[in-house]
Amino acid sequence: MGLIVQKFGGSSVADAERVMNVARIVTDTYKKGNDVVVVVSAQGDTTDDLIAKQMEINPKARKRERDMLLAAGEQVSIALLAMAIQKLGYQAISLLGWQAGFQTTSTHTSARIKNVDGTRIKEELDQGKIVVVAGFQGINRKEDITTLGRGGSDTSAVAIAAALHADLCQIFTDVEGVYTADPRKVKNAIKLKEISYDEMLELATLGAQVLNNRSVEMAKKYGIELEVLSSLTNKPGTIVKEKPKMEKMIISGVAKDCDIARISIKGIPNEPGFAFKVFSKLSAKDINVDIIIQSVGTDDTKDIAFTVALDKGQEAIDILKANQDSLGFRDIRLHTNVAKISIVGAGMESHAGVATKMFEALYNNNVNIQMIATSEIKVSVLISKDDADRAVAAIHDKFF
Amino acid sequence: MGLIVQKFGGSSVADAERVMNVARIVTDTYKKGNDVVVVVSAQGDTTDDLIAKQMEINPKARKRERDMLLAAGEQVSIALLAMAIQKLGYQAISLLGWQAGFQTTSTHTSARIKNVDGTRIKEELDQGKIVVVAGFQGINRKEDITTLGRGGSDTSAVAIAAALHADLCQIFTDVEGVYTADPRKVKNAIKLKEISYDEMLELATLGAQVLNNRSVEMAKKYGIELEVLSSLTNKPGTIVKEKPKMEKMIISGVAKDCDIARISIKGIPNEPGFAFKVFSKLSAKDINVDIIIQSVGTDDTKDIAFTVALDKGQEAIDILKANQDSLGFRDIRLHTNVAKISIVGAGMESHAGVATKMFEALYNNNVNIQMIATSEIKVSVLISKDDADRAVAAIHDKFF
Repeated sequence: MGLIVQKFGGSSVADAERVMNVARIVTDTYKKGNDVVVVVSAQGDTTDDLIAKQMEINPKARKRERDMLLAAGEQVSIALLAMAIQKLGYQAISLLGWQAGFQTTSTHTSARIKNVDGTRIKEELDQGKIVVVAGFQGINRKEDITTLGRGGSDTSAVAIAAALHADLCQIFTDVEGVYTADPRKVKNAIKLKEISYDEMLELATLGAQVLNNRSVEMAKKYGIELEVLSSLTNKPGTIVKEKPKMEKMIISGVAKDCDIARISIKGIPNEPGFAFKVFSKLSAKDINVDIIIQSVGTDDTKDIAFTVALDKGQEAIDILKANQDSLGFRDIRLHTNVAKISIVGAGMESHAGVATKMFEALYNNNVNIQMIATSEIKVSVLISKDDADRAVAAIHDKFF
Repeated sequence: MGLIVQKFGGSSVADAERVMNVARIVTDTYKKGNDVVVVVSAQGDTTDDLIAKQMEINPKARKRERDMLLAAGEQVSIALLAMAIQKLGYQAISLLGWQAGFQTTSTHTSARIKNVDGTRIKEELDQGKIVVVAGFQGINRKEDITTLGRGGSDTSAVAIAAALHADLCQIFTDVEGVYTADPRKVKNAIKLKEISYDEMLELATLGAQVLNNRSVEMAKKYGIELEVLSSLTNKPGTIVKEKPKMEKMIISGVAKDCDIARISIKGIPNEPGFAFKVFSKLSAKDINVDIIIQSVGTDDTKDIAFTVALDKGQEAIDILKANQDSLGFRDIRLHTNVAKISIVGAGMESHAGVATKMFEALYNNNVNIQMIATSEIKVSVLISKDDADRAVAAIHDKFF
């Protein structure tokens, strides 16, 4: 008995049969005495189809129009899901982002939620209705339609849960929860019962594609309990919360990220300010840098290496090469055949030797480490992409 | 130099090529120094596709959800057209019904426009933008999306023209204007240069599907000059206005309506009030009656016959049969193999014998007349559907 927000992705509502399946999950939750708000994405390939329509006409159209175009996708799926719920004999009403009170910043295609005014949703809940909300979208100050960018529907769901003080926010996906490694790749991967926000954040950042990072950050900020579970099986998933029960596990997962490139710069003059100059040039172009390593090179120069998203690699190289004279380095190179493997776990804070155990697993399997980065609850290594799956399996077997 | 509203139907924006074609027409108008507001319908078969999606899930869903679903169609087409205009190097912005200020009644799927607040459109025009507006849709008092029903985009265009005091409202279709008869059926059909609102109204009511009736009524009320023209040929169309130049034509067109059924009731007690009782029962169920003829039958009873829309025929019969005892008639029958042929023209007011000429054409071609109805500017006859095309051709040749 409480208020539950349930989020379903595009594949969960891809066709009529699946929409009816979601309607059954939603009404089962309602029947147990809960108020239910459902957040859905656009059906299956709708977004891709709409983008293809744009590409045929004008790939460089203004982003405002792209948001207008894409937001039509969720409009279709919320209407269909509300109809499916009505078919099962329950009251349902669909609300677009703006009708559900989503006020965002003005940055089209990657707007951020400023506020969710839950008045309308509450009114509809009070009338006994199941409320179906379009994820991924809102309006800005000018009352123009905005979209939240990748993973935006997760964020929409958590934002509603926060605005309405929901008791639980369930994120339905095509996996049954959060695993210690990708269950499609690692046979012995274990489903976690619980995981902390911070661990989930590290896993999300490190390439585990279960939950969008922004949504976990928001859940942490507002203390919203999340559950990651499958829309296809009727099993409990993984709960994401502040203080999970101790499961005597030192690490909660192994993650792999191949969507990454390494850039190495050699022969840097040994004077202050180089790192600042390099990274400010990149951040001005919205290029985020992940792992950074600086080392003393030969003959009184420095070397620096860092990783960026794979699709930003060439752009980063171009920017820095254009400034080679003023920056004064000797050589710059792009390496795309790399992968980042990470272990995450709140347990490692209090357990010495976790990193060592990871390195040992890699050494035993003859995997060469290019870079290392650590935080309180994670260890990441950069290795050759060819070794990635083998490395994940080896590390996983070492720990679980 | 002025403000022009242009409306394009779904077939005019059916694919990328046609969207670009519309963008060229629009920007050509803009280049001549005009402010341009464009109203578009959903692309080609989009609406039918969306309805098919609903039918798979819940044909009896609430109409509010149906409006939510269908309104997504225009959202896609306005975004794409704005992108196409940008591609040609002009500024464009798309606006949904509610963004463009369309306030409607609450009747979902057939809402009526209460007001168009043109503030946002004017602001965008003032910035030199071409404004692309979603036809067919608006919002009601509760801020729910509504649709205007069949032909609604025409009405949207005229409503904007009225709200903004536009100089001209161009309705682009797949024919080149208003003809004296259906040009696909009658070889000698002549395109009219000008026609009055009233004549256009009669033609629209009588089955000429060029312009939606509500839009002509609204144009007449606010004195908006309409032009009906083709989006595929670059030719002047037909102007619809209050006082067209005399073209020495007595009648302006011959129209055919096969979407009609005749109901005949026999053996009605010869006392007052029968017609009232019958038609109030029908109008309570939203069944509109067109031609009505009452005659004295045999043995002190009356007969009455009237026409209704074809798809309402059986429903009307069922309602009246259910009340046969209280109404006290002897027999009721439905005739669906009928067509209404009409001639329309302001000229006939001052020309005697127009009806006679029509009847003569039918007589010469051996067409039997079942019912006749006349107004100041039209004569309609009901005949067998099998004779319809032959009758239209005969009447047209007699007059033109």
